[in-house]
Amino acid sequence: MPREITGFSNPLIKRVRSLREKKHRKREGHFLAEGLRILTEAEQAGHLPVLLFYAAESADHPIVRRLIAATEANGGEVIETIPDILHKLSGKENPQTVIGVYPDQLTPLAALDRSKSDIWLVVQSMRDPGNLGTILRTGDAVGAGGVIMIDDCVDPFSVEAVRASMGALFTQSITTARWEEFMEWLRSGPGQLVGTSLNTTHDYQGPRYDSPTFLLVGNEAKGLPLDYEQSCDLLVKIPMLGKADSLNAAVATAVMAYEILNQKRDRG
Amino acid sequence: MPREITGFSNPLIKRVRSLREKKHRKREGHFLAEGLRILTEAEQAGHLPVLLFYAAESADHPIVRRLIAATEANGGEVIETIPDILHKLSGKENPQTVIGVYPDQLTPLAALDRSKSDIWLVVQSMRDPGNLGTILRTGDAVGAGGVIMIDDCVDPFSVEAVRASMGALFTQSITTARWEEFMEWLRSGPGQLVGTSLNTTHDYQGPRYDSPTFLLVGNEAKGLPLDYEQSCDLLVKIPMLGKADSLNAAVATAVMAYEILNQKRDRG
Repeated sequence: MPREITGFSNPLIKRVRSLREKKHRKREGHFLAEGLRILTEAEQAGHLPVLLFYAAESADHPIVRRLIAATEANGGEVIETIPDILHKLSGKENPQTVIGVYPDQLTPLAALDRSKSDIWLVVQSMRDPGNLGTILRTGDAVGAGGVIMIDDCVDPFSVEAVRASMGALFTQSITTARWEEFMEWLRSGPGQLVGTSLNTTHDYQGPRYDSPTFLLVGNEAKGLPLDYEQSCDLLVKIPMLGKADSLNAAVATAVMAYEILNQKRDRG
Repeated sequence: MPREITGFSNPLIKRVRSLREKKHRKREGHFLAEGLRILTEAEQAGHLPVLLFYAAESADHPIVRRLIAATEANGGEVIETIPDILHKLSGKENPQTVIGVYPDQLTPLAALDRSKSDIWLVVQSMRDPGNLGTILRTGDAVGAGGVIMIDDCVDPFSVEAVRASMGALFTQSITTARWEEFMEWLRSGPGQLVGTSLNTTHDYQGPRYDSPTFLLVGNEAKGLPLDYEQSCDLLVKIPMLGKADSLNAAVATAVMAYEILNQKRDRG
């Protein structure tokens, strides 16, 4: 049976609201996801919230009912509440009708099965949560094995990253690693490391990419460190005809990832 | 000679700050752009600010000096100020060292020369300023003729859109039009209208695109209205292998735009 909470000072509300901040997410090991679309993606990927909040007036919505039943069957707690509290939890002007609290899950490098996909996305010092979320979403679309985050990346469990991922956070494995760890793991098996760079004249459509391809994309403002570039098996550049000298990082990742996918699907 | 303003209650500061809101931008016909990178892009594209603010301590920076000289030579006003005021103007935690005020410029549909480029980007009800700015940036990169905004799109002169465009706002022409106006103009000359849609099985790499290609991308949440899709010469779909049913709108635009560009550059 759903519990009802309508008081702003309820300690659980305060605790859940605190998950909008990284330090509290880290301490609790949980994060927030919002909206029917993302919570449905999560459910379909086998992830149910430990806590589910929904607006009382949406209790009859068929998707809300299904989420409530699935969460309860899974041993999660379901809480009926009011839009003002959902607003407080989400920080959005027009809060979603459902908000879920999920355990954050990172996949250790050693647990990755590189043979499960032809494409892996590796981001280095990605700072914008929207970019990281969008890259997760692209990873899902191209059937990537997962996203590996190198160095000081933004928290993938931040509210903005979760939103931008549109649920791909639940379908893509996420791994964090230091560069040296990553390179040691990478070189312990098959895999071609392909970096996008402005310091090369190799057109990205020139090479035939090997499987699995590890696509490495650097920080939004600085690109990849020089020694990281030197460790790549291949550096390629996306042509740019205009005045600007770079693409948005999530866009560059997607253009590259679709080229790799297109080559592999061309081959059959 | 630069004027100096260090008082928060200065009426000019208040007026410039008000440009962060759409209604004031509309009334004043001007918008804000921030940062050396974007202001330099603007200058290189022939756009100088009518008002240039810079932090006193950055007065010796060579790019700042060049921007000051160019702005003054162009009849613009230059104002030396303090970081706290730049912060107030930009709303950013770490304000940029320069902020410029520029006249907003839309290009009327009738003034577009469709023969000047093989690719034009047409967005319908694009609601996210980051997406619109990123699409402008992609437009610059693929050498698009410009971006045409249909129906109720977000303001391209919003601070977030200007930031995401990374200066492409100054190199891409921006046009707003109602759908009927756009279609009438489109059909008055050569041009293939290609829509991205989930309601088709045509792979986006199947067709050979005609020049000029007008790439039509719909609203982030809803995609294109059905009757708009029916008006397209071609509907295509980007393959998606994962659980999610759509890509980020700026990502979809970029993947399509690079396919079109790649076909045209393959042809020589």
